[in-house]
Amino acid sequence: MHKFCLSLFALFLITISVCAQRRGQAVTEPYLPQLTAELKKLQQAALDSDYALKQVAYLCNNIGPRLSGSAQAQAAVEYVAAEMRKLGLEVKLEKVMVPHWVRGVETGALTEFKGQAKGTTQKVVLTALGGSVATPAEGITAEVVVVENFDQLAALGREKVAGKIVLYNAKFDQQLAASGRGLEAYGQAVAYRGAGASRAASLGAIASLNRSAGGAEYRLAHTGGVSYSPNSTKIPAAAVAAEDAEMIAYLAAQGTVKMHLTLTPQTLPDAESYNVVADIKGSENPEQIVIISGHLDSWDLGTGAIDDAAGVAVAMQTANLIKQLGLKPKRTIRVIPWMNEENGLAGGRAYAALHKDEISNHIAAIESDLGASHPLGFHAHATPEALAKLRAASALMQSFGAGLVNSVNSSPEADISPLDALGVPTFGLWQDSRTYFDFHHTTADTFDKIVPRELAENAAVMAVLAYTIANLPEPLPRK
Amino acid sequence: MHKFCLSLFALFLITISVCAQRRGQAVTEPYLPQLTAELKKLQQAALDSDYALKQVAYLCNNIGPRLSGSAQAQAAVEYVAAEMRKLGLEVKLEKVMVPHWVRGVETGALTEFKGQAKGTTQKVVLTALGGSVATPAEGITAEVVVVENFDQLAALGREKVAGKIVLYNAKFDQQLAASGRGLEAYGQAVAYRGAGASRAASLGAIASLNRSAGGAEYRLAHTGGVSYSPNSTKIPAAAVAAEDAEMIAYLAAQGTVKMHLTLTPQTLPDAESYNVVADIKGSENPEQIVIISGHLDSWDLGTGAIDDAAGVAVAMQTANLIKQLGLKPKRTIRVIPWMNEENGLAGGRAYAALHKDEISNHIAAIESDLGASHPLGFHAHATPEALAKLRAASALMQSFGAGLVNSVNSSPEADISPLDALGVPTFGLWQDSRTYFDFHHTTADTFDKIVPRELAENAAVMAVLAYTIANLPEPLPRK
Repeated sequence: MHKFCLSLFALFLITISVCAQRRGQAVTEPYLPQLTAELKKLQQAALDSDYALKQVAYLCNNIGPRLSGSAQAQAAVEYVAAEMRKLGLEVKLEKVMVPHWVRGVETGALTEFKGQAKGTTQKVVLTALGGSVATPAEGITAEVVVVENFDQLAALGREKVAGKIVLYNAKFDQQLAASGRGLEAYGQAVAYRGAGASRAASLGAIASLNRSAGGAEYRLAHTGGVSYSPNSTKIPAAAVAAEDAEMIAYLAAQGTVKMHLTLTPQTLPDAESYNVVADIKGSENPEQIVIISGHLDSWDLGTGAIDDAAGVAVAMQTANLIKQLGLKPKRTIRVIPWMNEENGLAGGRAYAALHKDEISNHIAAIESDLGASHPLGFHAHATPEALAKLRAASALMQSFGAGLVNSVNSSPEADISPLDALGVPTFGLWQDSRTYFDFHHTTADTFDKIVPRELAENAAVMAVLAYTIANLPEPLPRK
Repeated sequence: MHKFCLSLFALFLITISVCAQRRGQAVTEPYLPQLTAELKKLQQAALDSDYALKQVAYLCNNIGPRLSGSAQAQAAVEYVAAEMRKLGLEVKLEKVMVPHWVRGVETGALTEFKGQAKGTTQKVVLTALGGSVATPAEGITAEVVVVENFDQLAALGREKVAGKIVLYNAKFDQQLAASGRGLEAYGQAVAYRGAGASRAASLGAIASLNRSAGGAEYRLAHTGGVSYSPNSTKIPAAAVAAEDAEMIAYLAAQGTVKMHLTLTPQTLPDAESYNVVADIKGSENPEQIVIISGHLDSWDLGTGAIDDAAGVAVAMQTANLIKQLGLKPKRTIRVIPWMNEENGLAGGRAYAALHKDEISNHIAAIESDLGASHPLGFHAHATPEALAKLRAASALMQSFGAGLVNSVNSSPEADISPLDALGVPTFGLWQDSRTYFDFHHTTADTFDKIVPRELAENAAVMAVLAYTIANLPEPLPRK
């Protein structure tokens, strides 16, 4: 029944989209037939090729997790730069200083609770949040106080919080995620991961735990960054698996629960890293730039396949196909595997700062960073006039169920948000994200999660969208 | 579509079952009206009560994992015995000597592979198999040789296997499991977990890894027992997550892969433990015994909720309801939370040996050990005449979709197999097992996996089946 409703809803959106496209096609523009012919070639080639798949495999299996500042992140920069040079692109490495945080030991165990068998503890599955400070090497032991939200924490007050470990047991809304609104579900839960530690510290807590912001069936801890408030005491912060949050809440309702927590991450001096900037120069307007991108860095638990080797790979594939098919984009298509999306956004910011004098020549920035599942189309932060120019591309992509356009009010992806703020039209690939947050930021984000056909569909969306924007007679209108 | 086919198949089975029941009902036996009235009360009470749920919660959350020989296993014995005494049952603890194996450090990392970033390794998620011997404390480093089955191993021969770590990359058939045939899928994959180490050792391998025998989406390693052949060299044995098996196979296809493996489990002297034996004495034939059971021990990674606190809890609930409702079974109903199902079956064997002189008075043995999902009915290893006597019970359970009877050729569950071998009719609750092997023997087998309504349905099946057998005019015919 649920699936059926979803199908009906999708059909409704598709109908709207196709009707809109038909109205658009009523005025056939002279450039369209040739462009459409090229787009069709590009699309079919993307669907037929395993180049993107091989890139994800290499980044995940041969290189591995690529946290900013790590040797693997550096190896990934060098690998992608070399691959792009091999295709004949003009490649520059643009320096970015990135945080260099390194995970250490991370263990949790309940040491006191009702019914406890003598000499035993209950294991707590957890993982340090990126940027967290450490506990002493021997760990800390303290009572756990469980709240479901910030209001409950405030109601407890300093007296009941000081000296304790706070657990935010805020559930990730799996039903919302399963209905295709995973980003909303994530937004609700992630508030406790970001701000929880400083809010708890302001009442004297000595550590902060958040119930993982993500799917909750397989005892996975979901990492992600903690955001310490500038003037607050930094306390150690970790995410616990949903199961463990449930267990602690169950036991805390029966009496005192104490926990031994050890987290020994280190924050090293900022490291030198790079955005890779790889161009296929435009044949008519080389100064005008269309960015296609994903982020090259990943969290360190899994191997960053869906987040976001896939995004990098579909951008690389776009360049590959344009070269293989001998296509000549009128404007420059620029592949950027961004550095440091996960814990700082240094890459996106550094690029916007470095290129601020050429911003008016940045025609569009496209990123894929919502996984690699079947694409429904794209999110766009652009004017209606701009979107009207993309109807032909969108109609074409409808042939494989990726023709929807979702108009949004802010940058659809993080790395391109500094460009968005400067007026550049921004686009994000819109994937079916119903299972994305089950794996997001966990050890299970690995290469096998990629469905080859769906990755190829994503490459087709990136290629068709980018090539269209690069070849319109006039630059896409700015916002 | 798939779900639809499954539904059709279920409908087909139900039709068969209901038709069979109608034929049975044509001859209404004089004892049936009163028994049916009592069964209906029992069934409704089971569906309405949360007693079983509370037992699972306590065993998992307050006590925790209950591996044979552990302090938690002992605490569980004492807890269940006390609960049964509280209900007024006659309780004995029957001594069982059990293996006492304790997990230690377990880490895996690939130290050499194509593309490796300088100074980095690829983490391998793995867990020692129960009973495994240890590596040296500092671990071992060796090349990994990947095979998909025993034939491929044999074809490699000693020359290519000696001194190496063998990885059996035999896939668990998730499609088969999803179609309701999880036990078959498990049977295929588990062969490598059981016999893999000794087969590899016979060719000189120094360690054995098996791709986890179970669901494969969330980077979970599934533990379970290794079965060393009596005369073979014992080598360390572990299960790797499916994702890691895929990654190693991918890298091994590109060149040499070396791995550092550390496993430091210990096998301590056998420990004294107990089967709990708790009786509601029969009002007419107290010497005749109907066993209702689950196993109290569990693996040590999760907290053993679906495997098998749930089974113990539904047996406890049967006793609880009979007492609460003031019902008087004619024969003795004996609750047995078995000890050591997971790594030895010492409890089942010890009971059969201890009670061998009363075997003819063991009318039936029922166990629940296939999880806690919605019950479809029960598996039975009994004569057609015996099954005919259970039609009224089965028809009653059809009201909540649990009326199917599956006749099998051997004991449907492990703990009761020694009794089965002595001619006792045996029954196993038949749960929908489509997701069971996703969690089986992993860290994710935790209390939250229990769906309260479905657990209550299982309690209803156990109660109705046991009470029927305890109250038939004649003992159930033996095999």
